[in-house]
Amino acid sequence: VPDHLPGPLGAPLAEPLFDCVTLIGIGLIGSSLAHVARRKGLARKIIAFDADAGVSARVRELAIADEVAGSLKSAVRDADLVILCVPVGAMGAIAQEIAPFLRAGAIISDVGSVKCSVLAAVAPHLPPDAGFASLFLHRWCILTPPEMTDPKAVAKLSAFWTGAGANVEVMQPAHHDLVLAITSHVPHLIAYNIVGTAAHLEEVTQSEVIKFSASGFRDFTRIAASDPTMWRDIFLNNKEAVIEMLGRFTEDLIALQRMIRHGDGQGLFDLFTRTRAIRRAIIEQGQDTAAPDFGRRREES
Amino acid sequence: VPDHLPGPLGAPLAEPLFDCVTLIGIGLIGSSLAHVARRKGLARKIIAFDADAGVSARVRELAIADEVAGSLKSAVRDADLVILCVPVGAMGAIAQEIAPFLRAGAIISDVGSVKCSVLAAVAPHLPPDAGFASLFLHRWCILTPPEMTDPKAVAKLSAFWTGAGANVEVMQPAHHDLVLAITSHVPHLIAYNIVGTAAHLEEVTQSEVIKFSASGFRDFTRIAASDPTMWRDIFLNNKEAVIEMLGRFTEDLIALQRMIRHGDGQGLFDLFTRTRAIRRAIIEQGQDTAAPDFGRRREES
Repeated sequence: VPDHLPGPLGAPLAEPLFDCVTLIGIGLIGSSLAHVARRKGLARKIIAFDADAGVSARVRELAIADEVAGSLKSAVRDADLVILCVPVGAMGAIAQEIAPFLRAGAIISDVGSVKCSVLAAVAPHLPPDAGFASLFLHRWCILTPPEMTDPKAVAKLSAFWTGAGANVEVMQPAHHDLVLAITSHVPHLIAYNIVGTAAHLEEVTQSEVIKFSASGFRDFTRIAASDPTMWRDIFLNNKEAVIEMLGRFTEDLIALQRMIRHGDGQGLFDLFTRTRAIRRAIIEQGQDTAAPDFGRRREES
Repeated sequence: VPDHLPGPLGAPLAEPLFDCVTLIGIGLIGSSLAHVARRKGLARKIIAFDADAGVSARVRELAIADEVAGSLKSAVRDADLVILCVPVGAMGAIAQEIAPFLRAGAIISDVGSVKCSVLAAVAPHLPPDAGFASLFLHRWCILTPPEMTDPKAVAKLSAFWTGAGANVEVMQPAHHDLVLAITSHVPHLIAYNIVGTAAHLEEVTQSEVIKFSASGFRDFTRIAASDPTMWRDIFLNNKEAVIEMLGRFTEDLIALQRMIRHGDGQGLFDLFTRTRAIRRAIIEQGQDTAAPDFGRRREES
């Protein structure tokens, strides 16, 4: 789809939402935001900043932003919207550094939770080359404004993400953390854990685990290859919700182990049947496909 | 690829391995075995049997076997190889029923473990229409002959599976059960479990879980939609190995929970880094691809 034609993203807005949007950290998400902001005319001007000089040079070459700033100060001083697209662990320091230079009324946001849901299987430090305008199309973007936030700022940011093609939902931060703990963080933790367990067996060699990695385990290794830095930061920053959900998971798992030990086939069958309903609902809502290809394509029919 | 041309499966054998192969239970695996046995000339005659009259009629229409038997007796009495392609739970009864009618020297085998690794995401009762000749191509087939088995029988069966395109490995049954417990059974159990946990939360509604199902959880629901009957039978039939591996998994998970509680970022980072190496090895051995498409395709670039 050439840039000037409306694709699935729709036509550009009649009027930009922001005068100047600054994106800090230009990986997959930052560059994708730059692409879609330009394609949809969400901002009059797009400024990019990345701490890595090589990345900055590449962003200049790709010309995906109107300006590549040389410092955080020059990046943010004219912005009415600043979006931090850096790992969760780096956000605090950057927020502190830019605070003195922000314009009055500027909106500051980050993509911490976007990372969790979009980026699970890939490193967060993909180069700006990786970005594409439809990355956020039909994805959920959860906004978690602190209590004192001006509702107008929330509305404008919501319009920005809607303009980028996302579905927007506003949530209390604590509730967001619980939702993400169960839908993303705990699943990642148990995927990391089973792969770790498999790597340290005495009876079964690591080469056997790799050789015979079946569906199930193989899918878990995909998740367990996610970026270690990003996930370390997520677990350290969502400690309470993760431990709460993990406690429930373990409790349920021990009940399941008991069923196996006592040969309770009916109990197993009932649970395995209930879980199918959730899968069906996810497919019905377009969050995944039902293609029974075992995750692989047929080589011939 | 038309049937008479050699595709990735290679040319037919010069001489069939068996005079008469009988397949009992004609779902995805049974019908795929029929396809590949004919395509590769693995048997002079292929007899199919299914307890379901509708399936039998369809197999006749599809003409994927030389004969569709009307009874177990007539199905097996001429066979020099019988392969049971029925759910694990039904195998014992069928083995007992056919025993009196078997020819001396006939080889009896089953696809219990093939089911685990190939069929994780789909129901085992797919119709015979679903079968395709390359289902087993480059897949691992683990043979677990009881101790007293004639080595010639093992060699012939091994040649049959190799002819079907599979990689064959011979293993002690108990070791096979441990390998499958860690690479397939426990991963399935924890996928079922996390989806069950998510379905029974009070703080997070089920509709939120479905709506925001992120990568991680979404992948688990795919696994947790596997056939309940098949998996109930697997857990009841591999109880000891599953409970043993589950114990190790839980032990490791509690250690991980402790790291999160105590903010041990280095410990988390180290584990998350080690698990990547396993993923890399699986990709290098061609068991999966590294495509960073988040399990979805791009809608535009």
